[in-house]
Amino acid sequence: MKLYRLRRGEGTSGLHIDHAQDRAPDAHEVRVRMHAASLNYRDLLVAQGRMGTGELRVPLSDGVGEVVTVGRAVTRFACGDRVIPTFYPHWLAGPPSGEAVSESLGGNVDGVLSEYVIANEDALVRAPESLSWADASTIACAGVTAWHALFGENPMRAGDRVLIQGTGGVSTWALQLAVAARLRVIVLSGSDDKLSRARALGAEQTINYATEPEWDARVRDLTDGGVDRVLDIGGADTISRAIRSTRYGGTVATIGGVSGGFALSVEPFALIGRSLTGILVGSRTMAESLIRFVDTNGVVPVIDSVFPFDGAADAYARLECERPLGKVVIDISGGSR
Amino acid sequence: MKLYRLRRGEGTSGLHIDHAQDRAPDAHEVRVRMHAASLNYRDLLVAQGRMGTGELRVPLSDGVGEVVTVGRAVTRFACGDRVIPTFYPHWLAGPPSGEAVSESLGGNVDGVLSEYVIANEDALVRAPESLSWADASTIACAGVTAWHALFGENPMRAGDRVLIQGTGGVSTWALQLAVAARLRVIVLSGSDDKLSRARALGAEQTINYATEPEWDARVRDLTDGGVDRVLDIGGADTISRAIRSTRYGGTVATIGGVSGGFALSVEPFALIGRSLTGILVGSRTMAESLIRFVDTNGVVPVIDSVFPFDGAADAYARLECERPLGKVVIDISGGSR
Amino acid sequence: MKLYRLRRGEGTSGLHIDHAQDRAPDAHEVRVRMHAASLNYRDLLVAQGRMGTGELRVPLSDGVGEVVTVGRAVTRFACGDRVIPTFYPHWLAGPPSGEAVSESLGGNVDGVLSEYVIANEDALVRAPESLSWADASTIACAGVTAWHALFGENPMRAGDRVLIQGTGGVSTWALQLAVAARLRVIVLSGSDDKLSRARALGAEQTINYATEPEWDARVRDLTDGGVDRVLDIGGADTISRAIRSTRYGGTVATIGGVSGGFALSVEPFALIGRSLTGILVGSRTMAESLIRFVDTNGVVPVIDSVFPFDGAADAYARLECERPLGKVVIDISGGSR
Amino acid sequence: MKLYRLRRGEGTSGLHIDHAQDRAPDAHEVRVRMHAASLNYRDLLVAQGRMGTGELRVPLSDGVGEVVTVGRAVTRFACGDRVIPTFYPHWLAGPPSGEAVSESLGGNVDGVLSEYVIANEDALVRAPESLSWADASTIACAGVTAWHALFGENPMRAGDRVLIQGTGGVSTWALQLAVAARLRVIVLSGSDDKLSRARALGAEQTINYATEPEWDARVRDLTDGGVDRVLDIGGADTISRAIRSTRYGGTVATIGGVSGGFALSVEPFALIGRSLTGILVGSRTMAESLIRFVDTNGVVPVIDSVFPFDGAADAYARLECERPLGKVVIDISGGSR
Repeated sequence: MKLYRLRRGEGTSGLHIDHAQDRAPDAHEVRVRMHAASLNYRDLLVAQGRMGTGELRVPLSDGVGEVVTVGRAVTRFACGDRVIPTFYPHWLAGPPSGEAVSESLGGNVDGVLSEYVIANEDALVRAPESLSWADASTIACAGVTAWHALFGENPMRAGDRVLIQGTGGVSTWALQLAVAARLRVIVLSGSDDKLSRARALGAEQTINYATEPEWDARVRDLTDGGVDRVLDIGGADTISRAIRSTRYGGTVATIGGVSGGFALSVEPFALIGRSLTGILVGSRTMAESLIRFVDTNGVVPVIDSVFPFDGAADAYARLECERPLGKVVIDISGGSR
Repeated sequence: MKLYRLRRGEGTSGLHIDHAQDRAPDAHEVRVRMHAASLNYRDLLVAQGRMGTGELRVPLSDGVGEVVTVGRAVTRFACGDRVIPTFYPHWLAGPPSGEAVSESLGGNVDGVLSEYVIANEDALVRAPESLSWADASTIACAGVTAWHALFGENPMRAGDRVLIQGTGGVSTWALQLAVAARLRVIVLSGSDDKLSRARALGAEQTINYATEPEWDARVRDLTDGGVDRVLDIGGADTISRAIRSTRYGGTVATIGGVSGGFALSVEPFALIGRSLTGILVGSRTMAESLIRFVDTNGVVPVIDSVFPFDGAADAYARLECERPLGKVVIDISGGSR
Repeated sequence: MKLYRLRRGEGTSGLHIDHAQDRAPDAHEVRVRMHAASLNYRDLLVAQGRMGTGELRVPLSDGVGEVVTVGRAVTRFACGDRVIPTFYPHWLAGPPSGEAVSESLGGNVDGVLSEYVIANEDALVRAPESLSWADASTIACAGVTAWHALFGENPMRAGDRVLIQGTGGVSTWALQLAVAARLRVIVLSGSDDKLSRARALGAEQTINYATEPEWDARVRDLTDGGVDRVLDIGGADTISRAIRSTRYGGTVATIGGVSGGFALSVEPFALIGRSLTGILVGSRTMAESLIRFVDTNGVVPVIDSVFPFDGAADAYARLECERPLGKVVIDISGGSR
Repeated sequence: MKLYRLRRGEGTSGLHIDHAQDRAPDAHEVRVRMHAASLNYRDLLVAQGRMGTGELRVPLSDGVGEVVTVGRAVTRFACGDRVIPTFYPHWLAGPPSGEAVSESLGGNVDGVLSEYVIANEDALVRAPESLSWADASTIACAGVTAWHALFGENPMRAGDRVLIQGTGGVSTWALQLAVAARLRVIVLSGSDDKLSRARALGAEQTINYATEPEWDARVRDLTDGGVDRVLDIGGADTISRAIRSTRYGGTVATIGGVSGGFALSVEPFALIGRSLTGILVGSRTMAESLIRFVDTNGVVPVIDSVFPFDGAADAYARLECERPLGKVVIDISGGSR
């Protein structure tokens, strides 16, 4: 079978197609024919050697495929099931622990940019019935992170207000989920074009930080003192304003760690009565909740572009250079749905 | 009646005894004969003009007294009841809100360093039966902040591990509460003498950061990867190590805001899977829970020294110059219990 | 001023118009010109003497009016504000306590069927801007109970499934809130006509228990093992099936207590892994959350009928005899909005 | 190897020693040499055919042993580790689900009364270092159920009050845990002798329901209106009084389901503002928290008696006929610690 390997630290040029021997699944394992995978900003960091471990690694965490072989003791899946490998194979439910997050796909164990993947049956979830292969390939990291930040330990309720920074993969997922769940959304970006697309996706208000550098004051004005939650992705430059955009009792969910930023500067006075949480993708249970939500509400993630299997380097370049609103997908199987 | 007033911004020299006309309580108000008050580091910041509002202010938030007159419609208290004014008169229960924390004693409304105080019946709690006036005068801010950080929204359970920074008023309260609740405590300080006293109060382990500057590594070693919670008071210098001392799913409760520190520098990678919460003293319900706990478990706060009513300036100086382990108290009534 | 009084235990015939001396509000009180009030099933029980205390009582808990006089120390409201008296005047926030629920409007203290009402400023909330007087008069008990059951301590999330029993005031409010919050709703009733109206309001599925007596089995089929939550109002006859309609980890929120039912029969095996909670209207904070939600999502409660002030007995009769889907309202002021 | 099998429905007489072929563990499995097991009331119900499935079953859920062989891919354990099989092999963390509780040891899959047990590495926890084989054999169901009821989803805090019914295995574990965590405990029993032993174990108050049939009124008197939680085991006869013993906002955790009781009769009025939860043993995470607590606080469960491997029928009889305070243990290996 064909798969990609990445020499970590060499960037996109470290990416190449390789061949590996297929093997049969163990008693509790499932063999999956992959149909699509998608990229996250994290994958660029892994390519640059700024995240992950190991010299050679099958890249990417986010993908979807079809069960083609099941181990003798498997009970959760049957051949033909459409499945998504979970980002943390050992984090099934409950709060995170060192053991739960000890392995992550495409980070310190092999990922999904491969014709076949073998996974423990506990490390897979059923794909949403309502989504195509390309759409469903954006769930495992991007979708689940957005879900966790909005509806994880401390779920937001319809009518609550959220400030979403940026229009990258997690942010756009979060915007779509928030709109579907009847949260009131403010989107912050430096591009009027992207803000216009965010409004089309349902954002109630938008702020361009380039023309409105004191955007936290604007947020407080719009919301009678601050939003209930911020999805912070900017890291160092924005965290203080993010905190000042939050009401008493509110939370800043930062996924800035994912983008590998520098040290954040936090003002202790501003933090009083607020919380700052570093979001850690999520558990299998969160993935299942997200998928149920997607099937119920007809959310379809925004896809920027789809590249063929042998065009993975172009896909990486697209994400790195264009920073599109919407996901960059790789079609592994050339399949139709 | 006699009371102190403070000219904010002049430090301790802005403190002077004044006389005010006594008045009768309104329908829902209670008039309290104050017996003792105690100092927090916050009170030094108010004196320096770095916290609070207004030019002239009756100082101090923490005190205890006896009900001597009740308004016509009062139902919660009767004459003779021993009561503590709550730090935030409008925060009764539930999570904080702008309205709940709009006023704070000795900050932007008059405090308790006064022979008589008039308060709404909703802004008082019954003092612990097991504590003297001096002991009970340390509850409202110091005790409640410690309680909130340990047992507030997200209560710690017996057997959990907590790192407590320093040996000031809140930290020592937290140490005593944690020991009584069977948490396992590590205390961090720069003074071997204070660490020895912390061990005598029940700390299981102590670390001197002066001789062990990489103390976060030590904490991780002692705890198999990190504590469940940190009470951070150091602010700028310590917050990053505090986060690195915390396990996945754990929380850093920072009361550094109280000490008016500079910007904190937070590493986003370290924050992943952790939370950082700025503790905001607490609600009346938290004060009631603390008081029930104190009466049940026989906790008696450590008192460093007691000054007479006309020695308030000396009390301020004691706290400012000596940074004692234990509370500095002012005896307002010269009373016995 | 004119008001109604009720001789408890005499049913609707105990209801009569009376006159009372108006009084000026105390320092923290607000005087409210009432515009509308609405009935709950509880009010019938009070009239029958099966709930509440006292011989003579101003009836009804649910109403709305306009601030016309404010006490000298009032800060929360100004003249002209549209306000709703809260069901429990002393339950502001957080979990319930004996003190918080010690008084309830129209139960053991006077209610709102009166031209003027005087209330502590803490015992009022601002009415939704989007609702008319009649609509807003249904919030205090009916709306808040429905909100509490769905989004209180343990909030449901978009995509979750709920079974709502009946089509009375609380149930219909719950249906509308659940639909607006993108929950998936099953409604249970004995009337095909009412079920048809429930579908028009957004119920995804409906079950007629008259023709489908094993309705719990049907619910499990429709939901892959059970709903996340049941709003139970039937009490004795239905509680066991309600529990069997619930998935592991799910909750039955029973408001059957409100309807004064007989003893419930609960099977312990069925209860394993589930919870049964007796819903207690709710706090002021819950009322505020509901109102924010209503204004955000454009929910307009279903009104069955509006009676003039001197037709209160007819309003009672309408509720008692017709059991309409939708609220029965009394127009107190004859006002337009 | 030797093991017991039970013909379900024949009671203790259906119990007999059998021989089975040992097998090697799969990739992720661990082979455990069992040292001790202990009995729960549930095991009597399984023997009577009132719980569980299957005709022939290896009985008992609660045991402890030593790892003697590890599968090729095992990472969590090594030979020599002292381990406890978890009650629900598939419930690792988070709230319960149908899948999580689909199998239970000694119920619908084979249990631990066997010289060797093979388990997935995810279905084992490390035994407390501070406990002997006999003591540690009481953790999996009895200990974890008690932990869950006190410190599970909604953890009690030091100073809170709990009413514990009875002095069986779960109740006595709960008493010991509650005392160690500084809860204030009231024990209810019909035997003065057992109540005296409960006081020796740290109960603050005891009530004999035989001489005080209105025991709920007594509980309310002792606690200023009701306890924070009740551990209910009595089922049908006691549930209503249990609810009436609980304060507003409190919870009745019922494990009566375990004892297979008849229908419970619940008064809806009494339930208002309270919750009733059917406790479902617990997850692996709960077992780990309990074990950490036990090692920290030196809790040693009360052992009533230890029977040799070939005396299992006597052990069953002891539990059935004597209802002892303390656990009935079977020594499988004849080992010393």
